[in-house]
Amino acid sequence: MNFLHSAEHEHDNFGVDWVLHYEFEDIDSTLAVDEFRALIQQLEDAHLHTQVRPGNDTSLLVFIRIPRDRLGVMIHESRVKDWLHGITHSLPIADREPIDVTAETPSEELRSIYHAVTWQKQLGGAGITPGVGKWKHVTAAFPLHDPLANAELLRRWSRTTTLSSEDLDAIRALFGEKVAFYFAFIHCYSLFLLFPTVCGVVCWLYGGPYSILFGILNGIWCIVFVEYWKIRETELSLRWKVKGSGVLKVNRIQYTWEKEVIDSITGEIHKVFSTKKQLLRQLLLIPFVFVASLALGTLIVGTFALEVFISEVYNGPLKGYLEFLPTVLFSLSLPTISSTLTSMATRLTDYENYRTQDQYDLAQTQKTFVMNFITSFLPTLLTAFVYVPFGEKIVSILCPSWDVRVDATRLQQEVVYLSVTAQVLNCAEELLVPYLKRTLWQKYRAYRHRRAASARGRAHSRATDLLLLDPLEESSFLRRVRTQAASDEYNVHDDILEMCVQFGYLALFGVVWPLVPLGFLLNNWLELRGDFFKLSLECQRPPPIRAESIGPSLQGLEFLTWLGTLSTAAILHIYRSGGTGEVHLSSVVMTIFAAEQAYLAVTFGVRYALQKLGSQAEREEVARQYAVRKRYLASLLGGPKPASSPSARPRVRFHDKVDVYHLEGKDAATTVSLTAESERQSQFWTLNSVSTAEAGVKLIRALSTTDETPTKQYKSM
Amino acid sequence: MNFLHSAEHEHDNFGVDWVLHYEFEDIDSTLAVDEFRALIQQLEDAHLHTQVRPGNDTSLLVFIRIPRDRLGVMIHESRVKDWLHGITHSLPIADREPIDVTAETPSEELRSIYHAVTWQKQLGGAGITPGVGKWKHVTAAFPLHDPLANAELLRRWSRTTTLSSEDLDAIRALFGEKVAFYFAFIHCYSLFLLFPTVCGVVCWLYGGPYSILFGILNGIWCIVFVEYWKIRETELSLRWKVKGSGVLKVNRIQYTWEKEVIDSITGEIHKVFSTKKQLLRQLLLIPFVFVASLALGTLIVGTFALEVFISEVYNGPLKGYLEFLPTVLFSLSLPTISSTLTSMATRLTDYENYRTQDQYDLAQTQKTFVMNFITSFLPTLLTAFVYVPFGEKIVSILCPSWDVRVDATRLQQEVVYLSVTAQVLNCAEELLVPYLKRTLWQKYRAYRHRRAASARGRAHSRATDLLLLDPLEESSFLRRVRTQAASDEYNVHDDILEMCVQFGYLALFGVVWPLVPLGFLLNNWLELRGDFFKLSLECQRPPPIRAESIGPSLQGLEFLTWLGTLSTAAILHIYRSGGTGEVHLSSVVMTIFAAEQAYLAVTFGVRYALQKLGSQAEREEVARQYAVRKRYLASLLGGPKPASSPSARPRVRFHDKVDVYHLEGKDAATTVSLTAESERQSQFWTLNSVSTAEAGVKLIRALSTTDETPTKQYKSM
Repeated sequence: MNFLHSAEHEHDNFGVDWVLHYEFEDIDSTLAVDEFRALIQQLEDAHLHTQVRPGNDTSLLVFIRIPRDRLGVMIHESRVKDWLHGITHSLPIADREPIDVTAETPSEELRSIYHAVTWQKQLGGAGITPGVGKWKHVTAAFPLHDPLANAELLRRWSRTTTLSSEDLDAIRALFGEKVAFYFAFIHCYSLFLLFPTVCGVVCWLYGGPYSILFGILNGIWCIVFVEYWKIRETELSLRWKVKGSGVLKVNRIQYTWEKEVIDSITGEIHKVFSTKKQLLRQLLLIPFVFVASLALGTLIVGTFALEVFISEVYNGPLKGYLEFLPTVLFSLSLPTISSTLTSMATRLTDYENYRTQDQYDLAQTQKTFVMNFITSFLPTLLTAFVYVPFGEKIVSILCPSWDVRVDATRLQQEVVYLSVTAQVLNCAEELLVPYLKRTLWQKYRAYRHRRAASARGRAHSRATDLLLLDPLEESSFLRRVRTQAASDEYNVHDDILEMCVQFGYLALFGVVWPLVPLGFLLNNWLELRGDFFKLSLECQRPPPIRAESIGPSLQGLEFLTWLGTLSTAAILHIYRSGGTGEVHLSSVVMTIFAAEQAYLAVTFGVRYALQKLGSQAEREEVARQYAVRKRYLASLLGGPKPASSPSARPRVRFHDKVDVYHLEGKDAATTVSLTAESERQSQFWTLNSVSTAEAGVKLIRALSTTDETPTKQYKSM
Repeated sequence: MNFLHSAEHEHDNFGVDWVLHYEFEDIDSTLAVDEFRALIQQLEDAHLHTQVRPGNDTSLLVFIRIPRDRLGVMIHESRVKDWLHGITHSLPIADREPIDVTAETPSEELRSIYHAVTWQKQLGGAGITPGVGKWKHVTAAFPLHDPLANAELLRRWSRTTTLSSEDLDAIRALFGEKVAFYFAFIHCYSLFLLFPTVCGVVCWLYGGPYSILFGILNGIWCIVFVEYWKIRETELSLRWKVKGSGVLKVNRIQYTWEKEVIDSITGEIHKVFSTKKQLLRQLLLIPFVFVASLALGTLIVGTFALEVFISEVYNGPLKGYLEFLPTVLFSLSLPTISSTLTSMATRLTDYENYRTQDQYDLAQTQKTFVMNFITSFLPTLLTAFVYVPFGEKIVSILCPSWDVRVDATRLQQEVVYLSVTAQVLNCAEELLVPYLKRTLWQKYRAYRHRRAASARGRAHSRATDLLLLDPLEESSFLRRVRTQAASDEYNVHDDILEMCVQFGYLALFGVVWPLVPLGFLLNNWLELRGDFFKLSLECQRPPPIRAESIGPSLQGLEFLTWLGTLSTAAILHIYRSGGTGEVHLSSVVMTIFAAEQAYLAVTFGVRYALQKLGSQAEREEVARQYAVRKRYLASLLGGPKPASSPSARPRVRFHDKVDVYHLEGKDAATTVSLTAESERQSQFWTLNSVSTAEAGVKLIRALSTTDETPTKQYKSM
């Protein structure tokens, strides 16, 4: 037990809910004192408990704890809000009594804490927005990792091949829905990869590259996967009770509104910015895409041409060194161009003026996607559709004196590189580089710390020294917090983007080398675990943000599936006949055209079928909503609802005449004639003294003899 | 006033809710008596009042009236059901008291009456299903028209150019949502037609036919219209409170289920037929489309070839007569082929086994659409893309001895015919033919009636004669009912289909003659009023069926928009260079390919923009749902909800530790260490005797001097 105690000890978070990292290296200490006092004041005004400890170098760690009863109230209020907006169907108030509030998951708890720290004062928060405005020197704000739960998850996953729904729930519980959606996506995608992997291996064994069968199967697979994921996404958003949670998000501080509108139905005040104006501003995306394509395209085409020139044509001195020149030039200019474009994108997104942080992130991610798609796919597209089929022709037109022989296997080499080497390198980069960075950074800090200590030794009293010394029981805890404070924020968008690009490679170029999906499958097994490792050990714990989907990536996936169909058709057309041979542009276009029609038809069919089958979760959601209303109705009626019997509630009265249409001046006339009508009506309905059945029988006899008799007479004549 | 009275008199419906038309001409009178007794018995078992009168010839009219209190209960129950399924948000029970039930519209009233007559016994109806099974001789079942309201509407519309929302509401009130959706559609479509009309007239004045500008504008217009209509449809379905009403529909009698499943959440029993099996059965649509295309295509191509042969090549005797031969052959064979295909379609739809009548109608309409699209568009497509551009080539290959000169203006002639002559003929046919049919039928019936009366004179007593004589005050009413009983049922699908075909002509061939939309606009002004005339005076009043949309036509419209883009691009490419000249198939395909990409991009953009703008109705719907929940919450809390203040409900307790993950064997350890943790925690949070602010200030001073002092010393050196 003692051992257990000390083991737990190691991972104890001292009940800390949130940590702020306050850095004051580049400001004057008096200003820092003022800022810090204001910070603590604002936190305490919001009824939050605080503690302070020295951080790395010239920084402080502010520990925040929210009183448990206040947290309970906040969680409860958040649930009521969910119910008000129709995200959940059962109201969390049982019997009008204050009740025990138990957070379903740590992330539900953390979300309320996050709100308590970041929301503006009028919403009941402390209004601390790290890195923005007057809180510029609060460089990080994060909850602490739960080392035991993280370790347990990592341990489980290293022993199993596939994740269960419970595993995804566990990620959601620890890190919130936004992160969980990424893991659900990579998991679902990897499972789906099994199909093209098997097809690919079979095609590789019994056919060569450029297999038409594999191309078709791969194309259909892409469509099915994207359509399936749409349904899966809805299913998960229902399972995690986040469907429709987008509307709940609070306004960004930077959001500017045009007017405040009081909703005539709910009576609430909305801060409105014209949707039309926003749409017009969004149109600027078109010139942005144009500029980005031009800038990145020029760079890529230029590098490509230079590379071809040096490797194929140039025979002068230093060729061995010059061959690296294009790559070096590319690597040097890409970051500059990218960062220029990114800052343009940010300015655009700022200008588009989104209400919530979610919408803002979405718009920004969209622009990042565009840039990333260009840099990821353009080089290979150039090789596939310009260099190999038309390279010799282009060169012979531009520089008739050169003699270039195009290597038709170059496309295959590139694709093999992308699906094997690049994946390995990428994985290594993602895991090793941050590790090295962190280790070096810690060494450097230790060195600075020693220097500072020696300076302190000269300049300070022993009291100050003691002040900066960690208490023994806190030392391992504080070391952990300092490491986390210096860690990067986890950017889930980057990881999603990486998977989308991978999907794109498969959709666009999978047909070139059928082992591509195998490479991706193996990579993803590691990637999933590596990403969780990165998330839990190398990054700060992200605030648990609610999300309904993987964001704009879905559109990206659809776009790539479409482009992939065209690309696959074109590659098959060009490369099955040797590649460098005579290629007629018009016949390629006809093939692509046919492929596109097939794509449209298959997409329509698959979408129809999958949405008709629907998801169990959606059906359950509908049933649940129905059940809630039914229970409510039963409680109103004071017992189970009786079966529909006409005599059940005889006291119901009924207005006999209903006005269809407000006719001018007709009302008076109608009223007058109503009584006359009723009289005539009652006469009509009571006319027969016998029953209707007998009256009818009489009529039948009368009518049938009259009609049949003459016929019979006629016949008998 | 007396005059008013007698005028009202003329239109009095004697409080009749529903009419059954029982015909027994082809059965024995004893059997008829038995059947009739059973019919009345079943109606009376369902607590419906009945009256009987002689109908046309050997038929009876059974008048049904539902007691007002029972009707009130049914309407109320239907509303509760709507609420249970989330179609409306406010529960129609005010204070647990039975309340006044006023039908909002006549069609709400009629819907409940319709249910009372047709629903099966276990659902609380009389189970009368006209024309099906044992009610084969009940040939019609319909509510009576409201002559005054109909006349008023027709009068209003003849004086205005456009309908208001209230006009559409009035149609909905009289005839139900399904019919109202058609009128909303033709109205919305006609208003939209103004744009291409103006464009067309301008292009016609300042350019010729085959204007590229008009083609582009027309294509974009089609996309915008279809996307706008989607939103408008949702808006109307919310306005009319029918959104989601599809689930409420009862099972068809012909529906066969595989098993009964008890829903674990709602506890209700569902009769389930496997969706997968249904999907597989729906796949038979593909061979059906194939067969239909083949049959109709062969007919059309054959007729076309024959026509070309006779008019262009044949020079033998009787040419003047023979020129009509193809049309005659076509007109004779089309009905046979169509009816064969329709019966195939019906068998397919039966086999697909839909649960509700709505779904069944939808599937059947879909198949009718396919057949209609082929017969409507294939002839003109053949002219545009085979006959004119390739006719000479084809003929010279098939029969090198013939010399055929293709007339390039033939396409234009056909389009002019379609948009002017055909529309006029169609309109006339729709209005005149039923009128003539009805008049002739009435004449014939009068003749039969006289014959029957003279026969009766010979065979019967005076008592029987009196029995068959209409009472004076009822005679005009009964004449009206008999006319309605002999009228056709109104088929709204046919009218919708007609509009879709018109839209298709515009999308596919509008570019040929820019005055096409003008012709359509004028036609539609008349068509709308003509259709209402037909509906209210020449057809039985349809049972007010709820619908959420115009049905499968939306998919048809989307398909036609897509096909129209391709067709427009191809026509412009082929005909701007003269039409019959040398046309390279590959260059046409490239033009079409480019147009298709433009179509996809524009559709994406327009859809995004319109759905982002959304509809006011949808926003109001969300607000309404929110308002209902908010009011409910306020009533629970017994007053307006207090603003979020942390001290409002201090009694909320909170479970401090939440388990993320069910770790095996971890529970015990956690429990043990919890107490130790709490102790350490409380130490941590109470360590500083001074406030956090002051503690932090001390730390800042300590840290900033240590770091800055050495630098300063260094500088001062």
